[in-house]
Amino acid sequence: MTKPFRIAIAGLGTVGTGVAHLMHRNKDLLAERCGAALELVAVSARTATDERKQAAGNAEWVDHAIDIAARDDVDLVVETVGGSEGLAKELVEKSLSGGKHVVTANKALIAHHGAVLAALAEKHNVQLAMEAAVAGGIPVLQALRTGLAANDFTKIAGILNGTCNYILTTMQNEGRDFGGVLADAQAKGYAEADPGFDIDGVDAAHKLAILAALAYGTAPDIHAVHIEGIRNITQRDISYAGELGYRIRLLGIAARDGKGISTRVHPCLVPDDSPLGLTTGVFNAVQVEGDAVGRIFLQGRGAGGDPTASAVVSDIIAIARGERWPAFTVKAASLQKAKTVPMNDHVCGYYIRLTVADEPGVLADVTRIFADERISVQSIIQHTHDDNSPAQVVITTHATKEAAMQSALQKIHDLKCIVEQPMMLRMEMV
Amino acid sequence: MTKPFRIAIAGLGTVGTGVAHLMHRNKDLLAERCGAALELVAVSARTATDERKQAAGNAEWVDHAIDIAARDDVDLVVETVGGSEGLAKELVEKSLSGGKHVVTANKALIAHHGAVLAALAEKHNVQLAMEAAVAGGIPVLQALRTGLAANDFTKIAGILNGTCNYILTTMQNEGRDFGGVLADAQAKGYAEADPGFDIDGVDAAHKLAILAALAYGTAPDIHAVHIEGIRNITQRDISYAGELGYRIRLLGIAARDGKGISTRVHPCLVPDDSPLGLTTGVFNAVQVEGDAVGRIFLQGRGAGGDPTASAVVSDIIAIARGERWPAFTVKAASLQKAKTVPMNDHVCGYYIRLTVADEPGVLADVTRIFADERISVQSIIQHTHDDNSPAQVVITTHATKEAAMQSALQKIHDLKCIVEQPMMLRMEMV
Repeated sequence: MTKPFRIAIAGLGTVGTGVAHLMHRNKDLLAERCGAALELVAVSARTATDERKQAAGNAEWVDHAIDIAARDDVDLVVETVGGSEGLAKELVEKSLSGGKHVVTANKALIAHHGAVLAALAEKHNVQLAMEAAVAGGIPVLQALRTGLAANDFTKIAGILNGTCNYILTTMQNEGRDFGGVLADAQAKGYAEADPGFDIDGVDAAHKLAILAALAYGTAPDIHAVHIEGIRNITQRDISYAGELGYRIRLLGIAARDGKGISTRVHPCLVPDDSPLGLTTGVFNAVQVEGDAVGRIFLQGRGAGGDPTASAVVSDIIAIARGERWPAFTVKAASLQKAKTVPMNDHVCGYYIRLTVADEPGVLADVTRIFADERISVQSIIQHTHDDNSPAQVVITTHATKEAAMQSALQKIHDLKCIVEQPMMLRMEMV
Repeated sequence: MTKPFRIAIAGLGTVGTGVAHLMHRNKDLLAERCGAALELVAVSARTATDERKQAAGNAEWVDHAIDIAARDDVDLVVETVGGSEGLAKELVEKSLSGGKHVVTANKALIAHHGAVLAALAEKHNVQLAMEAAVAGGIPVLQALRTGLAANDFTKIAGILNGTCNYILTTMQNEGRDFGGVLADAQAKGYAEADPGFDIDGVDAAHKLAILAALAYGTAPDIHAVHIEGIRNITQRDISYAGELGYRIRLLGIAARDGKGISTRVHPCLVPDDSPLGLTTGVFNAVQVEGDAVGRIFLQGRGAGGDPTASAVVSDIIAIARGERWPAFTVKAASLQKAKTVPMNDHVCGYYIRLTVADEPGVLADVTRIFADERISVQSIIQHTHDDNSPAQVVITTHATKEAAMQSALQKIHDLKCIVEQPMMLRMEMV
């Protein structure tokens, strides 16, 4: 029998304990697939609850996680500490430098420091693996890196944050407003007490930066991502979008054309019968468009202990088998700095909702502004109300440049008849 | 610069020429991802059409494909000859024995001889790769083997034959009968002149046998697959299934429980809002259920030159990079013989359609037979017609053992009032 492959887990939150439990539960199966037993030799966590101690089993409890990096009885470190700086970063750096493989679920760390860490891993002939960092259990990084590697990726569009998708689909299904659904999601544990990381699009942006890096052989660049969240989405928007045949989804989109690479996270109108439109609740999904393969759609659970542990342990299996791969599709030394296409150059159809005082000439003013910006209107629907509340004007446009739309919105905003900040959503024909 | 990785293609049909074109079109991108240039050094095909010569470019034209196996200027052989025996088998054997990697799109070959060929590859320290053999461009083998490898796979269900899915969805959308749609599909090139391989479920069975082998670490066993095709599906069945909230799909299903592994290909009723129910036209899709990851759904193009070439060339990239993996998840020597659960032990809900003479007591006779077999009826709907044609009785059942249903159907068939062979379809709550 081959000698066991020895693993340490730093961080025993939902994912870390999930990894420990999965290693225990599928022990025989994993040994068969690895060609060697997987042995959990050490764990570390800030506090040792009964649940964590139980997950740790016979593994040694290490008081200071950083000490794991120096142990000579560990082949691979699972980093589920979290955060882009501090302990997580130091632990991964020291583990790689110390000749240990690292499997991480930490999207913030990889989005900020992925290229440097990949170079460090290559220097020390160990593997840096991070399937769990993006879309939980869906093996999308592997698909981009290997299974679809023959393709020039024209576009990648994903529902990358389950909390946002849960909120948006619950708003739609139950006809409720953002605030109430968010509060419920927090009560159920689907959203954090401080929800900004999720609902402002930061979490999705970290994941998108990693996807773009693998697809385009570029260093992850979180600063290049245009980020908008879902705080401003109202029940009205979901309802009006529905009437037009669309659903609202927070998408992360990476695309490459002759001008460069664009990466953006923002709410979108997507066709209600599209695979992404049909992805509901906490599910994640990624649609990959390649020049040879056409459209590939992947859907599954994007968070939670078990699905994320599935990705972590699957990475462990591959490493234990002796498989090695370039973390970002190409060698770290070959990673390019992405040539970024600015958001102002983005072209798409737009959904605009205006709250207007009931005065004559409103539509004339608005359409004049669109005409001046050479924006082609596709439809205008005016919703009036019996209770004399302001009318809602919903406009959709044909393909329009972002810069022109932003300029038009500024002018519309300054019109006297506009009584609220205009709502703007981009339409994505996924 | 690393020296080029040298490739030969045997068989220049749709897939072979697709591979050659893709290698040429994405040359720079592939070199970047491989860390070496991919060079097409030799090709072989029975006839040298202009189109094939153009695809071959500067590669040497080899008259006898088998000679490719003996060349010392070839690192990897792409086998797109097809067929489970004869040239394809001999070429793959000789290539592996000669120390050449082999990438194949040949599901029949792998379904029949996969374990032996994997052992041969391991013996000679070369890679046997076959992502293209199942579900075309969808990287599902890689997902089972690596990205989801931490999971105990409870069930895998897939739409694995685009021709059948095209026929079934066209029958549904256009309200037409099987024969006419098949003839159209043949005229459009979506179905072969001899369509049996597709519509009788053999092609899907080859692919399912390979999926099951990867999921369960067993030798592919095409003879263990229960196979039924779609020839008998009528417009009536599609319409009645629709009324009940289902669509008809030809699925390949592999499952494992305490009793063993079952593999089966047959038409099923699936919920019309399920991911597989929503998969239409020539698309393929595979739903994987794992104990940790839950449900993962993969969808994309399952056939055609470009999508299949995507899988072939992606395998080439991984091999050129130096990645090696066990072809069927575990080493060939560890492949088990599957313990097969017989079809008679299968349990599911059933859809039964009876064509009955309009006589009193029919339902009493039929429900008595079901009661005798201890089959629990879920619904009975009788469709009568103004033109005095026989009534159609549609029955759905709760979970029932196949053996009991077969026994009941035999008794029902013998009833005098039954004027046509009863139609039986299994319901699959995917």
